[in-house]
Amino acid sequence: MAESAGGGAIPGIQSSSTEDDGITITQLQVQNEQGSKAIGKVIGNYVTIEVPALRNQDTGLQDRVATHFAKHFEAFLQRIGVGKTANVLIVGLGNWNVTPDALGPLVVENVMVTRHFFELMPDQVAPGYRAVSAVAPGVLGITGIESSEIVRGIADRTKPDVIIAIDALASKSLERVNTTIQIADIGIHPGSGIGNKRKGLTKDILGVPVIAIGVPTVVYASTIVNSAFDLMQSHMKANKADNDQVFGLINSMDENERLLLVKEVLNPIGHDLLVTPKEVDQFIEDIANIIASGLNAALHDAVDTDNVAAYTH
Amino acid sequence: MAESAGGGAIPGIQSSSTEDDGITITQLQVQNEQGSKAIGKVIGNYVTIEVPALRNQDTGLQDRVATHFAKHFEAFLQRIGVGKTANVLIVGLGNWNVTPDALGPLVVENVMVTRHFFELMPDQVAPGYRAVSAVAPGVLGITGIESSEIVRGIADRTKPDVIIAIDALASKSLERVNTTIQIADIGIHPGSGIGNKRKGLTKDILGVPVIAIGVPTVVYASTIVNSAFDLMQSHMKANKADNDQVFGLINSMDENERLLLVKEVLNPIGHDLLVTPKEVDQFIEDIANIIASGLNAALHDAVDTDNVAAYTH
Amino acid sequence: MAESAGGGAIPGIQSSSTEDDGITITQLQVQNEQGSKAIGKVIGNYVTIEVPALRNQDTGLQDRVATHFAKHFEAFLQRIGVGKTANVLIVGLGNWNVTPDALGPLVVENVMVTRHFFELMPDQVAPGYRAVSAVAPGVLGITGIESSEIVRGIADRTKPDVIIAIDALASKSLERVNTTIQIADIGIHPGSGIGNKRKGLTKDILGVPVIAIGVPTVVYASTIVNSAFDLMQSHMKANKADNDQVFGLINSMDENERLLLVKEVLNPIGHDLLVTPKEVDQFIEDIANIIASGLNAALHDAVDTDNVAAYTH
Amino acid sequence: MAESAGGGAIPGIQSSSTEDDGITITQLQVQNEQGSKAIGKVIGNYVTIEVPALRNQDTGLQDRVATHFAKHFEAFLQRIGVGKTANVLIVGLGNWNVTPDALGPLVVENVMVTRHFFELMPDQVAPGYRAVSAVAPGVLGITGIESSEIVRGIADRTKPDVIIAIDALASKSLERVNTTIQIADIGIHPGSGIGNKRKGLTKDILGVPVIAIGVPTVVYASTIVNSAFDLMQSHMKANKADNDQVFGLINSMDENERLLLVKEVLNPIGHDLLVTPKEVDQFIEDIANIIASGLNAALHDAVDTDNVAAYTH
Repeated sequence: MAESAGGGAIPGIQSSSTEDDGITITQLQVQNEQGSKAIGKVIGNYVTIEVPALRNQDTGLQDRVATHFAKHFEAFLQRIGVGKTANVLIVGLGNWNVTPDALGPLVVENVMVTRHFFELMPDQVAPGYRAVSAVAPGVLGITGIESSEIVRGIADRTKPDVIIAIDALASKSLERVNTTIQIADIGIHPGSGIGNKRKGLTKDILGVPVIAIGVPTVVYASTIVNSAFDLMQSHMKANKADNDQVFGLINSMDENERLLLVKEVLNPIGHDLLVTPKEVDQFIEDIANIIASGLNAALHDAVDTDNVAAYTH
Repeated sequence: MAESAGGGAIPGIQSSSTEDDGITITQLQVQNEQGSKAIGKVIGNYVTIEVPALRNQDTGLQDRVATHFAKHFEAFLQRIGVGKTANVLIVGLGNWNVTPDALGPLVVENVMVTRHFFELMPDQVAPGYRAVSAVAPGVLGITGIESSEIVRGIADRTKPDVIIAIDALASKSLERVNTTIQIADIGIHPGSGIGNKRKGLTKDILGVPVIAIGVPTVVYASTIVNSAFDLMQSHMKANKADNDQVFGLINSMDENERLLLVKEVLNPIGHDLLVTPKEVDQFIEDIANIIASGLNAALHDAVDTDNVAAYTH
Repeated sequence: MAESAGGGAIPGIQSSSTEDDGITITQLQVQNEQGSKAIGKVIGNYVTIEVPALRNQDTGLQDRVATHFAKHFEAFLQRIGVGKTANVLIVGLGNWNVTPDALGPLVVENVMVTRHFFELMPDQVAPGYRAVSAVAPGVLGITGIESSEIVRGIADRTKPDVIIAIDALASKSLERVNTTIQIADIGIHPGSGIGNKRKGLTKDILGVPVIAIGVPTVVYASTIVNSAFDLMQSHMKANKADNDQVFGLINSMDENERLLLVKEVLNPIGHDLLVTPKEVDQFIEDIANIIASGLNAALHDAVDTDNVAAYTH
Repeated sequence: MAESAGGGAIPGIQSSSTEDDGITITQLQVQNEQGSKAIGKVIGNYVTIEVPALRNQDTGLQDRVATHFAKHFEAFLQRIGVGKTANVLIVGLGNWNVTPDALGPLVVENVMVTRHFFELMPDQVAPGYRAVSAVAPGVLGITGIESSEIVRGIADRTKPDVIIAIDALASKSLERVNTTIQIADIGIHPGSGIGNKRKGLTKDILGVPVIAIGVPTVVYASTIVNSAFDLMQSHMKANKADNDQVFGLINSMDENERLLLVKEVLNPIGHDLLVTPKEVDQFIEDIANIIASGLNAALHDAVDTDNVAAYTH
């Protein structure tokens, strides 16, 4: 396991990263406005778990990812000041009828809920557990209600100390689809996620901290095309080609400029679809199990962090 | 179509019933305490739709039941003072992982929701529709939260004028299982339904009228046995047998006494199971479609009551 | 663990039974026509695993049952002369759309198949495995073809040495529903199982031995009623009651006579339904996992019999 | 409705095409080796139904496509000499656990099977029907048996006069994914379809004609990129740009050359994934319903071609 800590390079940004046999974990802290502007991210704490081989359906690797997720999530909670007895409401965002958007609801189905034991027989709960509840609020087309409104109503009545929201995301590159888990304490903002949310889930709205767990599960066709240009340019360069000659003016465009061009071409003719890998059913199930197992171990001391998978059904 | 109205026989009770080729619809009004005591039902309005052949998977019959449901539900709303523009929240109670308890969530999946159109583009909604939203709050074992708490939180934020709650019930006889739909304006009370609810959904708690739609989908083994005694006694009687001789002391017991005896025998050895017909998957799907179609037609004038099935997916 | 071997009591019948903390395993050999007539079973080898607490959703117990199943199934194969390298075709009978009939197809989904490795890269298969294939032939209403015809066609082309057929059964008592696993080398006969099979799966038809694994998953209402009479009579007797007085003429009927009477009463009015416990979804999944895990361990030496669950997904 | 017939332009090729409000139907006949070489298709009869708007979830359009499918499939059967009483075996290829590969099995679940009525009560079958059976043979990873072996075994026993095989395909362009239905009388060849079939389903192997119904449901990332180049070049050209200047040497590559380059870059780093649109669950269900409805109407005169959807569940 290799570790590299970087800090101070960019003012207002602290970051460090760890690697363990195919699993790269990066911690990032955006400390102030200066840092925020520098890297284009909201002030807050971020952890990213990258596992390029996660699509290989290797259950050994999945168990290791779940264990890493658990350890880092537990540390994350501590870092942002969420105590060991804080009540947690887990929110699985997304549409359970659309496989690549069903990640959140699937985590909710598999996570261990305990709040009712604390409510009904508080004296009999074994030590090492905290009160956890979990809901999948559905999407506007199924319920007719913004998911944020549903969560707010439930939070008003159940008074959690912290909310953990799981959401499927549109990826910024094909390689990140179903290989990356992102954790941040910045909440869920309108327009993030696959569904078109109009209202966010944030501390401002809900009154308690909101931790977002996001997994890219779909990608725009235009993103695939744009990434391919990059890859082809690198490939050519590695082969000593003159990329100005090979790619013409395209070579002189920067990434965003080129993406806009691609979108401009694909979009009007309905070609800029959101797509997901063919094996999406299995990928979503695997990642939902990793997150559910990891949350169980991170949230309850009584669940063993080193063998998290055994506690999930 | 035959109709029979009865009234005045029992003070405080008004009832009438209609029959249409295998579909019997009974309206009952319990007007005061006197009537309530006389028949052991809470004060309120009741409609029961009985269709003994509903388990035959006859789609023609199902369409007719949906149409009757729509007409009677529409009249029921009017009778209890729910206007044509009243906002409706449909609540599908029960556990979607337990087929005979999944009726409510299935109705929610199939019902037409419109509230978001009224919220997002009120000027563009065609006439003949009202704002309808729908949620399946799940059960305690999945969410860690009482379903009534979830509904209350959502109702607090979305302010419906009336709540319609669909729930699967334990039947008082095998023949009613998956053949009967019960409508009442008395809400959902703790202990009703298949799941062990500890808190109800009532006007007292939620501040708005709560209409319950209940369908018996399971029955206790003891109920089957107890009904069988009745049937055997009638059978013997019809064959001129002396039932005291045939059934001994059992014959002199009244129904409740006998049920207690049966329960006393079956319960301690784990034989008093709740059971459901083998074909439960199909039955639940059929009835959920009937109710969803019927609600769509009853709630929206723009949906044609005479051909309700076409509007449901 | 207690063991009791009985033999010689009935000529042509050998039997022995083992008990291990809630799991009772009975071996029975019907050796000849005399034995067959005496107990009303076809000549053959039988193993029955009875676990009254199997409906309690206790995963520890389920793992123990899977381990016992594996050990006894392995011994059973040896006893009837099926060698360690014999090719196996697993057949999951039943209708995957009817939960209590979906046991066989679910086992097929969860069992480890290996035949294709032996076909495509015979030199690279690790030792300790044999060639196993698995199919769910569906039911007449879905395919239009008798399941036995489908199996026969597949067996003709793939030439298995032995066929293992899993089927859901109608139970002879409520207590056996989803608590009992029956193994026998007598094949599947017409009319057994939940679906109305018209043709069997037997050595005569298929040319290779057919081992049946049956699990009662449904029960007739009349069976529930008939069992209840027995239980009530025992209960009364234990309380020193005079059962002739309590039950009248019913008390003098033998079990079959009484069952006929119950059926005569319930059947004409459509009350003799096949029913299944409310929690059928979970029960079927649990038992399918036990059988799939057990088969994996019994069929492949490389799969550890003491920890069978880990090999099943 | 516009029709255009082309013929004679290429020797050995006859083609004609019809357009009806967003539905384009092309008939193609490859008559001999000369024609086959000219356009790179096996000798045979082809019908392609293209509906660019099919992903819009417009049920009216879907019904119209089903009706067109039914009419053209019926004519196709007649053209290739399959009579009105020919027995049909419908084969749904693919993996039911992988949504974009589940098209075939879904059609099998929804199609009307009648063969058992002809077998069990031939005198009572109403006129206007023929014997139809249907199976989903699964994939190698689930059964351990080549699907072609399973089909061959079943065909040997049930003796159909013709086999109709439905399969999901990898698309040659993103725009064809879930918008196109292809019919051909050339059977299924190894390597076609999403799964890696090693043996085909052809008249040579099965002894009866095999009609393939294929729907592109996935597309390679490299195909998306390659198509994008075309689209960008057309776009630039339309804007009077000098494409040699804009695209450099890329502009001088032909389509296949460029595709090879893209694959060479994406493949080694695992970027040449097969992808499918995010809404794959709904798309597959819609198309399976279209094909099942269309087959029901095309195969049975008693099912009305003009309102095919009503006969499918």
